[in-house]
Amino acid sequence: MMAMLQQLKGQIVVSCQAYEGEALFGSVMMAAMAQAAKDGGAAGIRANSPADIRAIRQQTGLPVIGIWKREYADSEVYISPTLQDVLAICEAGAEIVAMDATSRPRPNQERLTDIVAVVRSRYPKIVLMADISTYEEGLEAERLGFDIVATTLSGYTPYSRQQEGPDYEMLKKLIVHLGVPVAAEGKIQHVDEANRCFALGAHMVIIGSAITRPQLLTRSFVTAAEQRNRCNLEA
Amino acid sequence: MMAMLQQLKGQIVVSCQAYEGEALFGSVMMAAMAQAAKDGGAAGIRANSPADIRAIRQQTGLPVIGIWKREYADSEVYISPTLQDVLAICEAGAEIVAMDATSRPRPNQERLTDIVAVVRSRYPKIVLMADISTYEEGLEAERLGFDIVATTLSGYTPYSRQQEGPDYEMLKKLIVHLGVPVAAEGKIQHVDEANRCFALGAHMVIIGSAITRPQLLTRSFVTAAEQRNRCNLEA
Repeated sequence: MMAMLQQLKGQIVVSCQAYEGEALFGSVMMAAMAQAAKDGGAAGIRANSPADIRAIRQQTGLPVIGIWKREYADSEVYISPTLQDVLAICEAGAEIVAMDATSRPRPNQERLTDIVAVVRSRYPKIVLMADISTYEEGLEAERLGFDIVATTLSGYTPYSRQQEGPDYEMLKKLIVHLGVPVAAEGKIQHVDEANRCFALGAHMVIIGSAITRPQLLTRSFVTAAEQRNRCNLEA
Repeated sequence: MMAMLQQLKGQIVVSCQAYEGEALFGSVMMAAMAQAAKDGGAAGIRANSPADIRAIRQQTGLPVIGIWKREYADSEVYISPTLQDVLAICEAGAEIVAMDATSRPRPNQERLTDIVAVVRSRYPKIVLMADISTYEEGLEAERLGFDIVATTLSGYTPYSRQQEGPDYEMLKKLIVHLGVPVAAEGKIQHVDEANRCFALGAHMVIIGSAITRPQLLTRSFVTAAEQRNRCNLEA
């Protein structure tokens, strides 16, 4: 477990995700994107759903941070919300399993501490990653026994810091005060932002949309062009 | 022909290319990437090879700038070098056919002026795009009857300006002195670079690697991380 975390120290992990209805949806496509990331030097892949985790591990041989995004009527939690979801990721072979570790109620009133206990008992070698949105949730995740904390959800819970870029302040505070390593993830678009996360002491940096969501990359160019066209029309 | 160019005025075109041996190689993958670009607002796609052109047109319905990168022993020219290559692109249905219009010798001692004449005669509705590397080549392309000139090859011929970013100086000079529209293409990585091209008067801006080559995007993050790791080891 520690060897796996050591292997990812100072490295870039690329998140390869596409949702149903999106152009790149499907395990074949995601395995190809993950291979491209590996060819570019990624040390690991973050992937969504047991099918994608299996396909990506088989294709690339890279360690995978597995999640399963699922929606439940009785909870706002959507990253690997239930024990069953978490176990399915472990079963799919993910070396690291990441889950929502915010303070929000989970589906079926499940408790995070129970999920941690069951996974530890059944999959003692799997690394547990806590996706949190505030410093306090990071502290609590360490107390619950997570091996690594990720800043993934800052800005994605209503009570966390809402900002366009990475939450450096929370990242720094977590790095200073936690005993476990901290992964930087969320809203990291540019190389200099990744560098800043490493400079603050991030164990690894996880990049998603900036690499593997061409529709969003296109949108950023198109939005700027549209604004210009509008201004030209008005002028 | 003019309607097609008018449709692309002020717009972002996304270049979707992968080479044999690369993770994203193949028409299925390229059609998916092109669809993602369309979903992000791209107004057109630049594509390589008759197979990709067909797949992308069928998938997206967007206008396609077709090229065919091929290597010949007797020439340095590799973007749609021969008449046969150019005709194959036209046959595949590309609305715009782009070709190397540099001053370098072409394979089989073919002449650009002959290629232009044959395409005009057989495909009178197809827009002809000249990929050039210097201002003088742009002037010559207009003289030869091309409908639009693209800055694609600046930095990719030994005698053209060698620089990391877009060749704004050549772009500006072409826009000022040519009667035909000028497309900005080549080394445009960031939104502000695209904006600057539009501000100078580029008819359209064509983005490639910054959107559709995840291995290169990954590499830029990884290179920075590796530098940091090396410095930490040395310190």
